[in-house]
Amino acid sequence: MNLILIEPHELNGNLVSLADRRGQHIKKTLKSEIGDTLRVGIVNGRIGTGTVENISKKAVTLLIDLQGPQTARPTIDLILALPRPIMLKRVLAQASSLGVNQIFLTNANRVEKSFFAASILQEDNYREFLLQGLEQAMDTIVPKVHICKRFKPFIEDYLPGQTDCQVKLLAHPTTKCSLWEQTSPPITEKILLAIGPEGGWVDFEVDKFKECGFSTFSMGPRILRVDTVVPALLAQINLLRDFQIPDR
Amino acid sequence: MNLILIEPHELNGNLVSLADRRGQHIKKTLKSEIGDTLRVGIVNGRIGTGTVENISKKAVTLLIDLQGPQTARPTIDLILALPRPIMLKRVLAQASSLGVNQIFLTNANRVEKSFFAASILQEDNYREFLLQGLEQAMDTIVPKVHICKRFKPFIEDYLPGQTDCQVKLLAHPTTKCSLWEQTSPPITEKILLAIGPEGGWVDFEVDKFKECGFSTFSMGPRILRVDTVVPALLAQINLLRDFQIPDR
Repeated sequence: MNLILIEPHELNGNLVSLADRRGQHIKKTLKSEIGDTLRVGIVNGRIGTGTVENISKKAVTLLIDLQGPQTARPTIDLILALPRPIMLKRVLAQASSLGVNQIFLTNANRVEKSFFAASILQEDNYREFLLQGLEQAMDTIVPKVHICKRFKPFIEDYLPGQTDCQVKLLAHPTTKCSLWEQTSPPITEKILLAIGPEGGWVDFEVDKFKECGFSTFSMGPRILRVDTVVPALLAQINLLRDFQIPDR
Repeated sequence: MNLILIEPHELNGNLVSLADRRGQHIKKTLKSEIGDTLRVGIVNGRIGTGTVENISKKAVTLLIDLQGPQTARPTIDLILALPRPIMLKRVLAQASSLGVNQIFLTNANRVEKSFFAASILQEDNYREFLLQGLEQAMDTIVPKVHICKRFKPFIEDYLPGQTDCQVKLLAHPTTKCSLWEQTSPPITEKILLAIGPEGGWVDFEVDKFKECGFSTFSMGPRILRVDTVVPALLAQINLLRDFQIPDR
């Protein structure tokens, strides 16, 4: 926990009382004392400092000073074929730690239907993992999560109204095109990135994506688990955003 | 398991009998029948096919035909400050799935000493996770793992004799330089990449790396967990290997 995240409604003026795992973290892990200053952030808001005002058995009270910057929303939206619940928890934290604006969790032919019944798909449950990623990366912007149980209505009707990304990319291992060929680095536009289930998208799904303006690319022949491919592709797109003409 | 990996000593002529999780996988997950053909690979050797010859309660017998290519050894070596055991398992599988030649697990000031006593550091235990990554990615080349309990002898004496990488990179969040500035894409040389503990390397360690020819770079201000930063950086280096001058 590199940043203590505070919900706006928890603020009482400039004070906040933390009685849950954040309070425990301040007492047990950071071993903070009265007067110590910690990095804090307001969920979807500014970053600043919290000065320890009081430590009791139950809670830690911080005096909040939000002089830091307001983080901008990330410029990448992510479509993920719904992974199995244990993997989803990990991937939500990874994605929010790398910075993602929205996450669309959709069905696909090779997604097990039972995954949609998992309790992690309730906002109260998945939000915790998004916050973990933000606390780790010192960001405050919570990705908006959309859960889309049917693929066709999702891609045809729902998605177009939810994202304004100009560049749409579909990771598809059997394509010959690389990310270099499908983007024009340095990438300055918003990117909508779609990552399939482990067995890949089926032809119908790939066709639908293409109809909706997606370009396919491959990062090579290796089949990767979703907790590897998500950070890998988000990092590659970040690198292309920072493109600099190499020295010769 | 996208590839059934077989140890050379398990081969009996062209036959192999699989009585462990691989046999179970063929019976229960793949639901293979006699005559079916599966993708197989020999550890550190060729890829080919295995035809199901016999299925018994105990084992599955495959007839092996190794007509596929011999995979080349990856051209990246990885130095990792030893992560906590549960994270190490995940990272070993991620690294081998993305392709790594050698992995040096070293001590650092911010590594908990107790991690070196973990049972996962015994070869019989960690090898399983390397193989999982290879089965996933359909590769056969097992990364060589080195365990280095003392940082100074590792960096000064041991490392130079173990790696012939020409480009040495140290991931260090507080540096201003990007990967673009520290490499000359397309990267054609072997790369030695060092990734620190979550709290980062201490100054003494950074200085030692620099003395040994490492250049520091940062992928940005976000603090990432090791199971996010390892796939992220390996993927970024792979992307720079495939560098193509963008269309204008």
